[in-house]
Amino acid sequence: MAAEGVTAKRADARRNVESILDAAVALLAIDPGVSVNEIAKAAGVGRVTLYGHFPSRAALVEAVSLRVIASTDQALGAIDLEGDPRDAMARLLEATWRLTHRFGAVVIAASGVLTPEEMRRVHEGLARRVHALVERGRDEGAFRRDMPVVWQLATIQAVLHGASAAVHRGDVTTDDATRLVRDTVLAALAVTSSA
Amino acid sequence: MAAEGVTAKRADARRNVESILDAAVALLAIDPGVSVNEIAKAAGVGRVTLYGHFPSRAALVEAVSLRVIASTDQALGAIDLEGDPRDAMARLLEATWRLTHRFGAVVIAASGVLTPEEMRRVHEGLARRVHALVERGRDEGAFRRDMPVVWQLATIQAVLHGASAAVHRGDVTTDDATRLVRDTVLAALAVTSSA
Repeated sequence: MAAEGVTAKRADARRNVESILDAAVALLAIDPGVSVNEIAKAAGVGRVTLYGHFPSRAALVEAVSLRVIASTDQALGAIDLEGDPRDAMARLLEATWRLTHRFGAVVIAASGVLTPEEMRRVHEGLARRVHALVERGRDEGAFRRDMPVVWQLATIQAVLHGASAAVHRGDVTTDDATRLVRDTVLAALAVTSSA
Repeated sequence: MAAEGVTAKRADARRNVESILDAAVALLAIDPGVSVNEIAKAAGVGRVTLYGHFPSRAALVEAVSLRVIASTDQALGAIDLEGDPRDAMARLLEATWRLTHRFGAVVIAASGVLTPEEMRRVHEGLARRVHALVERGRDEGAFRRDMPVVWQLATIQAVLHGASAAVHRGDVTTDDATRLVRDTVLAALAVTSSA
């Protein structure tokens, strides 16, 4: 009986942690400054329960960020990057834009909490895949070679950041931005007649 | 004699103000945090003389910023924006990149000093010219029309900002960036076979 009670309590605790993390991801993605009280309320747990699992707001934000990093890596890992480099880049950009839009505010919330090393890891999984794909596209003649790779990577990042800012200003919708990011990056990478 | 003395003093004062502003533009363009002492030294005037003309560092930074805004407007006004929109865009981007590189740090130094209205004016002269040129290029069939103008303007700004960051990181040289900004923006604006 005592052992069963402990097991049930542990299952409860796991469920609570999951609920807290789910609520925190959802709320931080909308507002990086959301309070611990609001997160507890959305998770359906009390403040005391929340603080029992995460002793500070920073500890909670860190746990959320590591979860976001892991699920981002998983989502990127599931993208098919084989075949025509242009099509593969379109798939990678679409997924990246979706993830940026979904988790961008979480990364902002985390910027004071994660270590520089952890922050680097947020971008690394994406940067590595984009880099490999740009190299393959150049090798196979799909992308222009009269610009340094490092410039092409900087351009892709700049267009993605510019898209976030444009959506934030209300200049374009999130859905439109998906197509615009793709078409703009593919145009910037395309082999031109003069190249 | 008294009148001549006053005239000579005024001429001295004007020369000192010019020397201080010249030195301040040059030093702030390298380091937004440069001290008033360093500016006075580079201008060849004493601290007391400098503070006689500019009662605070903020007042000096404001005067420098207004001068930079005026000379940027003048430089942009001198660019030939007629003829083929692609060539005109290449000229405008080259001048913009040169000005950004030269005065970018001054604008950063000014960001806490200028009013939002003054800061807006820093970008307005450029934004207005780029906007008019993108519109003309679309009308004349030189630039693609399957993207909103506001997106194309955001892309141009994003590429310029990305270039500054890339130079700052040491990824590309300032000279290389001139060509890369031009080629990337023209590729992003170009009419494509699928457009």
